[in-house]
Order: sequence, then C-alpha cells, then structure tokens
Amino acid sequence: MSLKLLGHPLSICTRRVLLVLAEKNVKFEFQTIDFLRGEHKESSYLESHPFGVIPLLEDGSFKLYESRAVGEYLATKYRDDGPQLLPPTEDVEKCALFRQWASVEYSQFSPLAEQLLMQKMFNPMRGIPCDEPLALQIIKRLEEKLDVLDTILGQQPFMVGESFSLVDIFYMPMVDMLYQAGQRQLFEDRSNLKVWWGKVSTRASWKKISA
Amino acid sequence: MSLKLLGHPLSICTRRVLLVLAEKNVKFEFQTIDFLRGEHKESSYLESHPFGVIPLLEDGSFKLYESRAVGEYLATKYRDDGPQLLPPTEDVEKCALFRQWASVEYSQFSPLAEQLLMQKMFNPMRGIPCDEPLALQIIKRLEEKLDVLDTILGQQPFMVGESFSLVDIFYMPMVDMLYQAGQRQLFEDRSNLKVWWGKVSTRASWKKISA
Repeated sequence: MSLKLLGHPLSICTRRVLLVLAEKNVKFEFQTIDFLRGEHKESSYLESHPFGVIPLLEDGSFKLYESRAVGEYLATKYRDDGPQLLPPTEDVEKCALFRQWASVEYSQFSPLAEQLLMQKMFNPMRGIPCDEPLALQIIKRLEEKLDVLDTILGQQPFMVGESFSLVDIFYMPMVDMLYQAGQRQLFEDRSNLKVWWGKVSTRASWKKISA
Repeated sequence: MSLKLLGHPLSICTRRVLLVLAEKNVKFEFQTIDFLRGEHKESSYLESHPFGVIPLLEDGSFKLYESRAVGEYLATKYRDDGPQLLPPTEDVEKCALFRQWASVEYSQFSPLAEQLLMQKMFNPMRGIPCDEPLALQIIKRLEEKLDVLDTILGQQPFMVGESFSLVDIFYMPMVDMLYQAGQRQLFEDRSNLKVWWGKVSTRASWKKISA
C-alpha cells in the first residue's frame, strides 16, 4: 500500500480528507502528527510541508498538501470507486459551477466559521477567554451568509446541485465543529440547512470517521 | 458579443477576472457596479448574485460568480487563446499540484492580506483608524507565510512551477493593493518574491488593466 495520510483525527482539515477516503472506501496508512505537541513544526515534517500544517498526503513518491486539493486529487484518482464526487470533466459549465460552489465554501463560509471557532473553542482551550462582543459580530456576519446558503439549499438539495459532492464534504468537518462548540442553532434555526445536515451527517462515511 | 462582466475596475476580485480576459485577449462588455454606492446590494443584482459581492460573469444565459471560479472558467473556455494558464487536464498529478498552489493562495495568503488591507487601507478610508498593535500581529503572521513563499519561489519561478499560470493571477491584484497600502517592503525585502513580482507586473496584461 503506497497511500499514506499524515494528520490528526481531530483536525478539521484531516477529517475532510478522511471523509473522501471513506466515501471511496480506499485503503491507506494513517500516521498521526501530534499537532498539540507541535510535531507539524518539526523539521522532518516541514521538509515535506513547508507551511507546517496538517494534513499531508503521500502517494508513493508524490506528495500533496492543502486538504481541499488532496480531496480533489483522491476524488479524481478514484473517480470510478464509490459515489461520483466531481462533475463530468467534459461539461465546462458544470465544472465552473462546481468551482463556484467550492469557492463559496472557501470565501463566504470558512473564514467566519474559523474566527468563531477561535473565539468559542480554540482560544478557551488555550486559556484565552472568548471575546464575547467580537464573537457576536462574527455570528451576525456568519448568519447573513448562512441565510443565503439556506435559500440556495431550498432550491437545490446539495451544495453543488442535485447530488452529494466533494463540496458538501468540504463543509462537513467545520459544521460539525461548530455543533461541538455549542453553535448548533446556526444550522437548526435554518430549515434547509438543517435538512441538508441531517442528510449528509447520516451517511455511512461520516459515521465511520466520527466513530 | 455575449460575454459581460459586472464589477468595478478598482475591486481586487474584479481585477483578477479582468487580468484573465486581458491575457486571453477576449472581447467582453463591462458593466460597472458601483459598490461604493451599494449597487451590489440592490435587488436587481442580488437576483443574480445572492451573496451580493462583485464580480459576476454573464456568458449568454450562463451566470457565474466567485472571481477565481470565473477566472478558471474563462481560462478553460479560451484555453487555445493566448498563454496556457491551466495544467493539462489529463495529467492528474500536475492538476493536483495546480490545485494545491491555488489553495495556498486562498488559505495561506489571502486571509491575512485582506486583514492587513482592512487595517491599513479600507478602515481608514471609512474614517476608522488603523489598529496598530493588531496590524503588527497580522504583519508578523503574514511575513511567516511570505518567507515560505519566498523559499518556494527560489525553487520554481512561478506560483505553480515553471510557467506563469492562473494562480499567479490570483495573487496579483491583492499584492498590488498591498503595495498601494504602503506595504511594499513585504515583497521588496524578499528577493525571490521581488523577482516574481517584477516578472508578473511587467506583463502586457497587467499594464493593460492598470492603465
């Protein structure tokens, strides 16, 4: 077996890749990088991943980082295994819309979600209290984005359209972490987002990586 | 002519798309959306772009937003015009590395660059003073990322490897705005980044959209 994922089972970005591997039912070796102990900043790891974050994929001698890029590589390489997570390459407009929705996750959702998790979860874990007025500002801005996503999910069942795709996977570990950080009402209060989360979080792949 | 771009010539995201169009020498109609007057939040615009940001591309009846997705759509559609801005679709590893480097711009560079521009340029334009201690924190974190990019650009001349690509374009309008915001030393102090900027900012396309 030549496929090896270096990461941590609790990391949002690692879970994004684990979810793709579970959907595709691909065998791989997992090597834990203990980021809580700073193992991702040690020189042996930095040689392969100069930005010093997790995860990193090794496929034989080919190395790749950035979780969404790794997810897309695996979804492409194992296109014929398990569910189809990408649009057909020959359909230029479908590919463009896939790219648009992927970018919406990257630009409209994740930056605010990360800032909120910093205040509500990661800072408190490190003994830094949540800045409540700042958290409220972030929530207000995030709610505006989620209102739009809720409307879109009233028109299409999944983030890219009619079927589950890689872009749904891109959201899932971050949404789950927001639930864990006590922010479930962001999704439960929005009926279409709630239905979407109900659908994606009951998939076998999600149960497998959350076990 | 059916290609229409709705945006503003001063917007970073609009300039990203204008640069692709200039590289490909494609004719298009430009419609100014006066975001300083809030035109991007008016209902007629929101019908096509529910997140209410610019730019938006209309290609006949096909509509697309998110500047990087729009850039990739145009680079795909006009693949045979002008320089090749994308990797060959049949090369799975090259495509994966393209995606990795695109993601590096999106996750490692842009969020910090945007935060710095907010403090140094956009807030002051709105009468909100720069939070200097916060700006220093952001600069420190951004410098760590730029140090890595500088090392990478010592190994490869462009952001994806041997040739100029869409990913270089993704960076350019933001780098230029940092120069305009008085942050040129971030790039001038790093020799490989400085050489890279010298190369990309003397391209005819850049001169055309900056005229």
